[in-house]
Amino acid sequence: MSEITVKPIAFVRNEFQEAKGIIPREAISKIELIDSISIASFDGIDDFSHLEIIFYFHKASKVITGTAHPRNNTNIPKVGIYSHRSRNRPNHIGLTLVKLIKREGNTLTVSGLDALDGTPVLDIKPVVTRFLPQEKIKEPDWVKL
Amino acid sequence: MSEITVKPIAFVRNEFQEAKGIIPREAISKIELIDSISIASFDGIDDFSHLEIIFYFHKASKVITGTAHPRNNTNIPKVGIYSHRSRNRPNHIGLTLVKLIKREGNTLTVSGLDALDGTPVLDIKPVVTRFLPQEKIKEPDWVKL
Repeated sequence: MSEITVKPIAFVRNEFQEAKGIIPREAISKIELIDSISIASFDGIDDFSHLEIIFYFHKASKVITGTAHPRNNTNIPKVGIYSHRSRNRPNHIGLTLVKLIKREGNTLTVSGLDALDGTPVLDIKPVVTRFLPQEKIKEPDWVKL
Repeated sequence: MSEITVKPIAFVRNEFQEAKGIIPREAISKIELIDSISIASFDGIDDFSHLEIIFYFHKASKVITGTAHPRNNTNIPKVGIYSHRSRNRPNHIGLTLVKLIKREGNTLTVSGLDALDGTPVLDIKPVVTRFLPQEKIKEPDWVKL
């Protein structure tokens, strides 16, 4: 299996057109299912407060393997591409945990999605407490910079 | 953008050959980077205790849109495919938060990965505390069944 083809199941709608700076955590986005996916696919989703959104960085053009400065911040030492969340990664896949504000028909309103307007969404999964870390989390100090 | 092509960046190695029953949470898996991806892509990863693994359900053949019983359990009411984590979803993308045990060269040893032997891995991201839910999580009672 050398190539895998996927298709957008939804698109992001928000006010962020360009990848300049950081999209604030409180930013509101809409996620609209495409017409060919049944609206019932969202049934029961508002019993969850949080969702994980898997999306495609459609404006990313570079691919880095090996190491890079996280967030292009040269104050942070270079680390491997799988030790940070840069969009310039093989496959250009993004993943963000968001807060669900409401569901209306084929549209979710969420906060905390750091994806640009027009971003293709590949999958949406509900956040379940028992699948989150059950132990203390270890992370390097630079993630707080 | 109607189709997106991605490629495996690594493969899962473990003792689970078939999708029968539930892979136990304490199961150990290895994740081996493919040769064309620099080993340095893992540099710094062992400063993190937990990772998110995005993978492809390569043995899933069905696609459900609309509603289904979570985990095929008819005691649970049907909900939309995006309200549970069934592999029979559009794009067949899986996502599991795992505990990193060790990194050796191009190989990670992890626990908690519910993916079969030979599963293609599409992406690996470090778990960062501040991107986890900061508020109380709401979830329906059936997730505990």
